Amino acid sequence: MNDEDRQALAERSASAMFAADRASQALGMRLISVAPGECEMRMRVRPDMLNGLASCHGGIIFALADSAFAFACNSEGVPTVSAAAHIDHLAGAGEGDELSATARRLWQGGRSGLYEVVVADQGGRLIALFRGRSHRRNPAPSPQLDTK
Amino acid sequence: MNDEDRQALAERSASAMFAADRASQALGMRLISVAPGECEMRMRVRPDMLNGLASCHGGIIFALADSAFAFACNSEGVPTVSAAAHIDHLAGAGEGDELSATARRLWQGGRSGLYEVVVADQGGRLIALFRGRSHRRNPAPSPQLDTK
Amino acid sequence: MNDEDRQALAERSASAMFAADRASQALGMRLISVAPGECEMRMRVRPDMLNGLASCHGGIIFALADSAFAFACNSEGVPTVSAAAHIDHLAGAGEGDELSATARRLWQGGRSGLYEVVVADQGGRLIALFRGRSHRRNPAPSPQLDTK
Amino acid sequence: MNDEDRQALAERSASAMFAADRASQALGMRLISVAPGECEMRMRVRPDMLNGLASCHGGIIFALADSAFAFACNSEGVPTVSAAAHIDHLAGAGEGDELSATARRLWQGGRSGLYEVVVADQGGRLIALFRGRSHRRNPAPSPQLDTK
Repeated sequence: MNDEDRQALAERSASAMFAADRASQALGMRLISVAPGECEMRMRVRPDMLNGLASCHGGIIFALADSAFAFACNSEGVPTVSAAAHIDHLAGAGEGDELSATARRLWQGGRSGLYEVVVADQGGRLIALFRGRSHRRNPAPSPQLDTK
Repeated sequence: MNDEDRQALAERSASAMFAADRASQALGMRLISVAPGECEMRMRVRPDMLNGLASCHGGIIFALADSAFAFACNSEGVPTVSAAAHIDHLAGAGEGDELSATARRLWQGGRSGLYEVVVADQGGRLIALFRGRSHRRNPAPSPQLDTK
Repeated sequence: MNDEDRQALAERSASAMFAADRASQALGMRLISVAPGECEMRMRVRPDMLNGLASCHGGIIFALADSAFAFACNSEGVPTVSAAAHIDHLAGAGEGDELSATARRLWQGGRSGLYEVVVADQGGRLIALFRGRSHRRNPAPSPQLDTK
Repeated sequence: MNDEDRQALAERSASAMFAADRASQALGMRLISVAPGECEMRMRVRPDMLNGLASCHGGIIFALADSAFAFACNSEGVPTVSAAAHIDHLAGAGEGDELSATARRLWQGGRSGLYEVVVADQGGRLIALFRGRSHRRNPAPSPQLDTK
């Protein structure tokens, strides 16, 4: 596949996946952009996303990052799931904040991949850093065969 | 404080915190039990928690574990937040599954603590293991002064 | 295999692996015990293991835990490597301290496993907690065939 | 401090720290460069660093990354230790490989910081990615007072 085809595949995969992803929709996430190995999602912090300290619940911030990660690692037509993830919380977010999560692939080896997701608010302040390990459910086609 | 007082404090803290935690409520979480350094939360997987693969969104599973973690580490009257967390996804959960998250403290040193959260379904199957690092916002009272 | 055979296999695997493991030997590690999915290693902190703060180098503490992890996850005759690991440093260790690392399996699913390693000193004080994710190089035999 | 002074401080700190760091020396590490929040260390894989699979022991690779991390986070004159670290192993390294570990700061907030370390071999192949969380032992001087 050439770059144009890969980009078209990424967009088709993401649209279909987003249409079926009720959780991301229910949390008000919006798919901003997708490319092979990359994705940006956004979400506005709603009142029903606040924890007892009036900050956005850490699990909701994680969910935004996790969606961006999932869309990035499913952008090449190989069904892929999250095996593990780590999040560092750097600053709190409050009601009305517009959060963006930008995912990019760091590495892909066999069936495992590593992705970095940066979560920031509307002013560019870092809110969290997320690192995800992906797992391809079926073996990737071997490189030798990928000759078209 | 004796054990009875510490347990009463844990229950009071948790009740007040849960009443103010709109995110945990909106996700249908229920506070099952709390004790000093421990907490169990439960949540039923709803249709609007499913991702594009018809599995419970990993961020929602994380959020359940994160709430149990937050209630466990705020069970002793010292305002505490999550600094970082790691999750390993072991099995998927589907619509209608009743998930429990059981948090316990592994270690507390100065202002930092470590907690383990086990997420399982109604049949006891492991769904995820979560490890959280807590951070006390103000220095803990020094042990010498904690003499009533 | 019955329990006795599995224990014998764990001991044989560990002896052969330790004999070939020059790094663990060079760091003065000793294999204390091994069982299916478990291992204990010990190491005395030498002067040449200290960092610039006169504490045992964090990488050396990690190496001890990593060896215990490697021996635990290779205790069943399936070649297994570390895919990822996380360490939380809880206390420092100094020259002459006798450190133990006790590994146990938390979970095994398909080719991936999770192990917990507790590092403590001679007085039982927690030095570090280590979590490792293992990866079996070849697919595990399917359960249906494991009928003897 | 101006940039020149900060660079001079980083170099002085690193030289003094390396001279006292017996563990990094014993592992044959070499300090290649240091700057505020950054460091590169190198190490050749010796026969006594191999594990039972004839690969460089994961703990030794971790130790190299951990040293680069430690020198990067102590480059500004504030005593800093590692609180936690995560490593993803991407490829093995063998005897004679020349490994480099390049650390850079991702974030610093109050007493906590996050650093990324990339470990590669002489051919630029990724061997491991390491993420470290640093902890400043004494509170950082408040920015308002840092006016000279």
